[in-house]
Amino acid sequence: MGNAHICATTGHQPLMQAALDAAELGHRGANPLVGAIITDDDGTVIATGHHRGAGTFHAERDAITAAYAAGYTDLSSTTLYTTLEPCRHAGRQPACTELIEAAAITTIICATTDPTANGGGAQLLRQRGAEVTVGVLEAEAERLNHRWTLAQQQGRPFVTVHMAQSLDARIAAADGTSQWITSAASRSHTHRIRQRVDAILVGTNTAAVDDPRLNARDDDGEPSPHQPLRCVMGLRPTPAEAQLTAGRPEGQGWMQLRTREPLQALRTLAATGHSGHPVRHVLVEGGQSVLSAFFAAGLVDEIFVYTAPLLLGAGRASLADIGVTTLAQGLRCELDTADGGPVTLLDNDVCIHLAPAGPKGDH
Amino acid sequence: MGNAHICATTGHQPLMQAALDAAELGHRGANPLVGAIITDDDGTVIATGHHRGAGTFHAERDAITAAYAAGYTDLSSTTLYTTLEPCRHAGRQPACTELIEAAAITTIICATTDPTANGGGAQLLRQRGAEVTVGVLEAEAERLNHRWTLAQQQGRPFVTVHMAQSLDARIAAADGTSQWITSAASRSHTHRIRQRVDAILVGTNTAAVDDPRLNARDDDGEPSPHQPLRCVMGLRPTPAEAQLTAGRPEGQGWMQLRTREPLQALRTLAATGHSGHPVRHVLVEGGQSVLSAFFAAGLVDEIFVYTAPLLLGAGRASLADIGVTTLAQGLRCELDTADGGPVTLLDNDVCIHLAPAGPKGDH
Repeated sequence: MGNAHICATTGHQPLMQAALDAAELGHRGANPLVGAIITDDDGTVIATGHHRGAGTFHAERDAITAAYAAGYTDLSSTTLYTTLEPCRHAGRQPACTELIEAAAITTIICATTDPTANGGGAQLLRQRGAEVTVGVLEAEAERLNHRWTLAQQQGRPFVTVHMAQSLDARIAAADGTSQWITSAASRSHTHRIRQRVDAILVGTNTAAVDDPRLNARDDDGEPSPHQPLRCVMGLRPTPAEAQLTAGRPEGQGWMQLRTREPLQALRTLAATGHSGHPVRHVLVEGGQSVLSAFFAAGLVDEIFVYTAPLLLGAGRASLADIGVTTLAQGLRCELDTADGGPVTLLDNDVCIHLAPAGPKGDH
Repeated sequence: MGNAHICATTGHQPLMQAALDAAELGHRGANPLVGAIITDDDGTVIATGHHRGAGTFHAERDAITAAYAAGYTDLSSTTLYTTLEPCRHAGRQPACTELIEAAAITTIICATTDPTANGGGAQLLRQRGAEVTVGVLEAEAERLNHRWTLAQQQGRPFVTVHMAQSLDARIAAADGTSQWITSAASRSHTHRIRQRVDAILVGTNTAAVDDPRLNARDDDGEPSPHQPLRCVMGLRPTPAEAQLTAGRPEGQGWMQLRTREPLQALRTLAATGHSGHPVRHVLVEGGQSVLSAFFAAGLVDEIFVYTAPLLLGAGRASLADIGVTTLAQGLRCELDTADGGPVTLLDNDVCIHLAPAGPKGDH
């Protein structure tokens, strides 16, 4: 963006910031975080919307719906601020360009263009007579989804990682006991993530030692309506009696990814459908070897570290070698202010929400 | 306490809770956390006070001073709630019993008796005509200071521990580099603790490898007026050129504790004066061996864990063996809601404030 353009759009910045703040209410995953606000001709905010994850309303539709719900019947003199260029192709949701045109909104301010092949909505809206500005708080909006954009560029699912550990980062005591280090509230939190991902991935060792069911359950322990694909990564065969198979043959709700390379596993998943959709969001739950491999490969997009108020002093560490030998090479992360914020108390556990830090100069 | 007494004092509980809440504003250390409030004859709170650490006003005096500052000149019809029985012996501060008598306060409600030899103020106040009730929210008040009381019973200083680590609980990378894992804000937080302790303790390995100055500095790096005693624990001699000696012979601002037993080190410190006082509060800063020995011995009273948003995967862990072999033996802690609360963001670091959990049944 040239300086002249930045000056001309300065007045829009507080409103776009409000849309960015709304975007952060969503969950990271298959889709980017997007927020939208609608202002009347005085610049007063009359509706706010955000995207809540794949399969739910896009932010623009959420805001338009909120405006109608608030009693506004004519949006023709309003302005729509959205953190991402509206989509023009119908998918699981109708195209936002159609909804905007139907609402007769003709002034649209966007922070960024859509980096995916589904974009291009600005051009279409302009062709139909709308005034569309792109680039207000563009850097902030790009930073908000920098890992999601990278995952798109790499043609792989978005990766959320779960680390559940003691204060001294142990995932098991010296004798291997590990259930439960974290609190019931932390485990509920994880089950809410399981409910919205396409796949869960663990290593062969975790599958063998912990024998998890890997399904998504509600707080009463009942299976949730949506169940993610259960995946075991590694070369050691998954025992037929493993709970995650639910007694079914491979391919029916679970699969083995016969590789030690995270990128290969992710590309296999990207090519694998589940419940009628491609796998676009994976939750990697452990253990040490698998987590370390994902971090070493730079393939982690979002991190939840659940720390229990417990010290063990010995036992398996949450991570092993990730290719770092000196402090300056350490994998720097940034606190993630989206989706519940950077720190959440879960009973007596502290959950820290992070992402690998963006390119230098972003901050 | 009998049930009859508990019922009679139920009306005092919300006011004592307010005094307990005030107590939590203080710092843990040489003295217990104590809060006090003063109510008028309607039960309206007119003043609140708390103790800010050794050498500062006791909570009762803090509250009485606040009442005068608020314009009250006659406190004779007020009630004083205090979480700890007033002291009757003048030390660095005048005896609270004298101040209460001078203020003509004749109704005093206490949560607990004073477990130290300095106590006994309730009896004295009664002898002088005051009505003194002891036992309102007694269990809560005891729990607030359970580690401090234990330290008193064991005749040793109160021990605060500092752990500064990566998300995966490393205190150095594989090649030993460790400066700095945590943020400048975390280090400032530690220096504020250094400013109020009597002694800082590190192991011989930390003294040799990190060569810390171990003094208390302000945010500009200038030494603070109060400097704690700098202590090295272990058998390996401290090099004469170590920075913590400040070029002086042992006994002049620093000392070596020639033992690997934390209790012996603490008892030596308790018998050692510094700046004209006994050593009653020690900050144990590391490294791995010393921290592990203190935890293994059950001699940690307060914990600050500074976690930097950084992953290392390898390198020295914050703790080694603490005598725990199975999960059920793990050292359970509780989040400490006092002194800034359980979680503080320090730049991008997350500081968790904890204490070893109290006896079972307390919670």
